[in-house]
Amino acid sequence: MIGLRPVLALSGGVGGAKLALGLDRILVPGQLTVVANTGDDFEYLGLHISPDIDSVLYALAGVNNPATGWGRDVETWTFMSELENLGIDSWFRLGDRDLAVHVYRTLGLHSGVTLTTVTEDLRARFRISSNVVPMSDDSLRTIVETDAGNLSFQEYFVRRRCEPAILRILVDGSASSRPSPGFIAALEDPQLAGIVLCPSNPFLSIDPILAIPGVIDAITNSNAPVVAISPIVDGKAIKGPTAKIMTEMGLPISALSVARHYESLLDGFIIDTLDEALAEEIARLGIAVETTDTIMKSVDDRTALARKTVELLVRLQRTGSQ
Amino acid sequence: MIGLRPVLALSGGVGGAKLALGLDRILVPGQLTVVANTGDDFEYLGLHISPDIDSVLYALAGVNNPATGWGRDVETWTFMSELENLGIDSWFRLGDRDLAVHVYRTLGLHSGVTLTTVTEDLRARFRISSNVVPMSDDSLRTIVETDAGNLSFQEYFVRRRCEPAILRILVDGSASSRPSPGFIAALEDPQLAGIVLCPSNPFLSIDPILAIPGVIDAITNSNAPVVAISPIVDGKAIKGPTAKIMTEMGLPISALSVARHYESLLDGFIIDTLDEALAEEIARLGIAVETTDTIMKSVDDRTALARKTVELLVRLQRTGSQ
Repeated sequence: MIGLRPVLALSGGVGGAKLALGLDRILVPGQLTVVANTGDDFEYLGLHISPDIDSVLYALAGVNNPATGWGRDVETWTFMSELENLGIDSWFRLGDRDLAVHVYRTLGLHSGVTLTTVTEDLRARFRISSNVVPMSDDSLRTIVETDAGNLSFQEYFVRRRCEPAILRILVDGSASSRPSPGFIAALEDPQLAGIVLCPSNPFLSIDPILAIPGVIDAITNSNAPVVAISPIVDGKAIKGPTAKIMTEMGLPISALSVARHYESLLDGFIIDTLDEALAEEIARLGIAVETTDTIMKSVDDRTALARKTVELLVRLQRTGSQ
Repeated sequence: MIGLRPVLALSGGVGGAKLALGLDRILVPGQLTVVANTGDDFEYLGLHISPDIDSVLYALAGVNNPATGWGRDVETWTFMSELENLGIDSWFRLGDRDLAVHVYRTLGLHSGVTLTTVTEDLRARFRISSNVVPMSDDSLRTIVETDAGNLSFQEYFVRRRCEPAILRILVDGSASSRPSPGFIAALEDPQLAGIVLCPSNPFLSIDPILAIPGVIDAITNSNAPVVAISPIVDGKAIKGPTAKIMTEMGLPISALSVARHYESLLDGFIIDTLDEALAEEIARLGIAVETTDTIMKSVDDRTALARKTVELLVRLQRTGSQ
């Protein structure tokens, strides 16, 4: 029973958090570790903001806003509206409830504790049974090299609405960074049943996690199978700028491109039924392909996709141990 | 016409801000300078909070909460309630709208500008025509020496609800502090028509302003008459711990004690009609006494007391110039 053994999921924001919720619901409590991208972290109004960690925490706690894909479900906006009255350019929207989490995190970090510790505190406060850990306790910042110059991730993503064309994506501070203790522990756990690359943006959300020195080696050295879920369905991104970025990078907008991007890491790949025609070509890369409905609208969709993911991990374990 | 000449008012929180509003309404726009006590300033949740400056700003902007005496009139409490969910002891209540002002101030100070500049920015944003200036741009902190040990002002005032008995009041950082540029300019203005000690707590709100080196000399050297309004009416404090502190200091709870406390500074003193019996004894201190209704419930009460104050200043100017 795979649910009794640990599973590691690498996640960005919304899409990843949806699958993380599914995994959280179907696995034995405490067996899931979600590693969140922190390349999107930034300072705003004197606060340390970790958008992907919060997306995961809010999703697993069931307090996320499903309509916007970010922030809290029950929210007020008094703080932001008053800041606007005071003439502060509020390009990053902070709800009053959301704000409490940023203040909590910032106070913790200023007091000298690590992002891991603050995240663990928040996890406990939100009564989440899965582990939620940052990819690193070091300061890593995703920089987007665009035709409009180098932009920080939030500058590109929120302020410029992904409009500039991407030339290259860099992760500042990556070379000297280390994975967080919880990330390392999960990767090195001999009981690890599988590693899941969530259907997040491969370039902006998953690559920054893989860019931390030692992570790719640890994944490769692990006996656990690695499965990714395609964020591209029927030639379109489910959400966000993934498709646009692939065009700018000269890649066909296709689940096949995603499979090729991750190729050497993957044992298995889950594509949408709409992309069934691609299965054979992906299989030829030496990757086990599973086809299912991957668009997660309801909580049932999330648990169903999580179940398919775990089933594929089980199948690949058996294959690996044969 | 005194309204055409500058008036300087020294103010603490609620009581002082009420009279400041009255003066703001009856003087020619721009002629009033309110110097706010900053001995109560403190850091909370990483924010620089200036309670007395905000009381004055909110009162003059007409956005104060008249029911509580602090904070904003139209307010939500989502941030604080979520902080409580996260286990943070929220002993100092910050509304979502109020919070925006603290963040604005903190960002300004962290960027290297002075408290004077941030306060001036806020004044302009709130479209207040009077000048509002901190007593100093230096860090001064009122410390209350009590039977429960030394407490910061907010610790004493908010957290401990003024329960410990006061032995002595100190202002940390006072010796090396300077009055703010706007305070000095107002004190040295040869056109100054009068100096008003607002009906704030003499020990906790006005004394910290007077404790800044040079302030008492500048007041004494000014040709402008000095008038105080008694915060004690009929042997009771209108608001706050003034009466309790006077008991702890062995002072009779009476407007006479307040007059004696300020004695050498005062040219005039305004007491409530209920205290008419004290007029003669106060006059014997060489202080001109005016008797009127001093309890300010409505805006009309505020402007009426402001008018009485200005009339006394005019009378004292004439006396002084004879």
